[in-house]
Amino acid sequence: MTDKTLRVALIQQGCGDNREDNLERSIQAIREASAQGARLVLLQELHTSLYFCQCEDTGQFDLAESIPGPTTDRLGQLARELDLVIVASLFERRAAGLYHNTAAVLERDGALAGIYRKMHIPDDPGFYEKFYFTPGDLGFTPIDTSVGRLGVLVCWDQWYPEAARLMALAGADLLLYPTAIGWDPRDDRDEQARQREAWVTIQRSHAIANGIPVLAANRCGHESDPSGHTEGIEFWGNSFACGAQGEILATAAQEEAILIADLDLAHSEDVRRIWPYLRDRRIDAYEELTLRYRD
Amino acid sequence: MTDKTLRVALIQQGCGDNREDNLERSIQAIREASAQGARLVLLQELHTSLYFCQCEDTGQFDLAESIPGPTTDRLGQLARELDLVIVASLFERRAAGLYHNTAAVLERDGALAGIYRKMHIPDDPGFYEKFYFTPGDLGFTPIDTSVGRLGVLVCWDQWYPEAARLMALAGADLLLYPTAIGWDPRDDRDEQARQREAWVTIQRSHAIANGIPVLAANRCGHESDPSGHTEGIEFWGNSFACGAQGEILATAAQEEAILIADLDLAHSEDVRRIWPYLRDRRIDAYEELTLRYRD
Repeated sequence: MTDKTLRVALIQQGCGDNREDNLERSIQAIREASAQGARLVLLQELHTSLYFCQCEDTGQFDLAESIPGPTTDRLGQLARELDLVIVASLFERRAAGLYHNTAAVLERDGALAGIYRKMHIPDDPGFYEKFYFTPGDLGFTPIDTSVGRLGVLVCWDQWYPEAARLMALAGADLLLYPTAIGWDPRDDRDEQARQREAWVTIQRSHAIANGIPVLAANRCGHESDPSGHTEGIEFWGNSFACGAQGEILATAAQEEAILIADLDLAHSEDVRRIWPYLRDRRIDAYEELTLRYRD
Repeated sequence: MTDKTLRVALIQQGCGDNREDNLERSIQAIREASAQGARLVLLQELHTSLYFCQCEDTGQFDLAESIPGPTTDRLGQLARELDLVIVASLFERRAAGLYHNTAAVLERDGALAGIYRKMHIPDDPGFYEKFYFTPGDLGFTPIDTSVGRLGVLVCWDQWYPEAARLMALAGADLLLYPTAIGWDPRDDRDEQARQREAWVTIQRSHAIANGIPVLAANRCGHESDPSGHTEGIEFWGNSFACGAQGEILATAAQEEAILIADLDLAHSEDVRRIWPYLRDRRIDAYEELTLRYRD
């Protein structure tokens, strides 16, 4: 362990319909992570509630809260008590009719270091996020903390190399993805395996393309569909940490886990010297990345 | 096999210093691929020569040839005879002092369907490509053929998600990477494993991010360093084909190989319906991808 080694913890939990219980279990897991020496803790997406986007229900907006607000206050106090940085994922109420899927970063002194509002919003059967979440308007801006400049992104963002690249170009030391992704239980095992493998692969690729570590904390457990129309979602867990070459450092199974990994932040400098991708980008030829389609 | 199934072949070969022999062996391999039913053949990077970029030597420019030229003429005749499409990788002499690393696509009727000039040029010890290859000036433009719209890229391009995305946005049905990548024999086994795994992972990620298959044909065998300063390069082979979810369809080992895979091009449409990434790109927030760094 060098000065540039950062011990991180990823909290993978199952959630129920009692918000206080969910949050209390997040807090207990953070305490355990601290006891194991973690200085940065990443929580999964929307860790204080069920994944409520399985159907469109205006009543679910009651779950949203302001940021700063009661949950960031509690997690800020905890960050200060334990002397570590916490990345939480919350349902933000910004105004009546204006809600975001927001990650909040709590500094070791308890302050709110910054927030990131999910930029890419999915919408698929069982994942009706476009109903709930206004697309983020803060751009791809990393958040400075005492443990490094954090490139915090959220779930669906993980499929977009553009998001990872913009964070890296802004100096992010690592990328962090709170996530809630799972299977439709009706898909066969081969399809499920392809989906999980693709999810791991695309995030490892962001580490490789940018020469920085990546952390992904996912939800686990089965949650039923309130509408009763489907068999619900089986969140696949599998939270992982990888290094600057995309090499897997630690992986969780499908059960609840506190996943510990030691990141060697000095390694990024070495990796970027042998794989100097930033040097050779053809920025003169990338303009049409801002087009919807080149037709 | 449906109408949208495309049988492809990737030729992985070791090369010597006799160009005619290298080309003749490429041709024999294409004949074997045709006998196995391939309708599209991808050759590795610079398949008619040793990988001559291990040192900077003006004499090596004698290897360059015009396009169209003698090699595209021969491969065009072969494409017509065998009724298949060939993607070759050649050292292009465009003018005195102006050379490119260029992929040429030969249509089933023998015509030159188009060329792609390598856009991203590496330069590392043992891979002095910036000395030999002028950066491409044709942009990221796929090439239309009778077997589909081909997103042909070359080697170092494979580390750039921007290149893959621009090809996909221009309607590429698949991505093809002729490659010459290998290990420094002085690196330890763990480092070698990380490098090869990263190379596979980043290319699979382009399939995933864009919902289209990817083909990568790599060189194999050891080539010594003409300067005698290093232990040369151990090209790692491992050519592979993956589908639109990044799932591996076929992989070669380190030895010479004619790798056959059946691509289900109709599957891309299905994959993009369940993973509609193109729908949700935040093109309003990607402008700074054209910056060298966001500082």
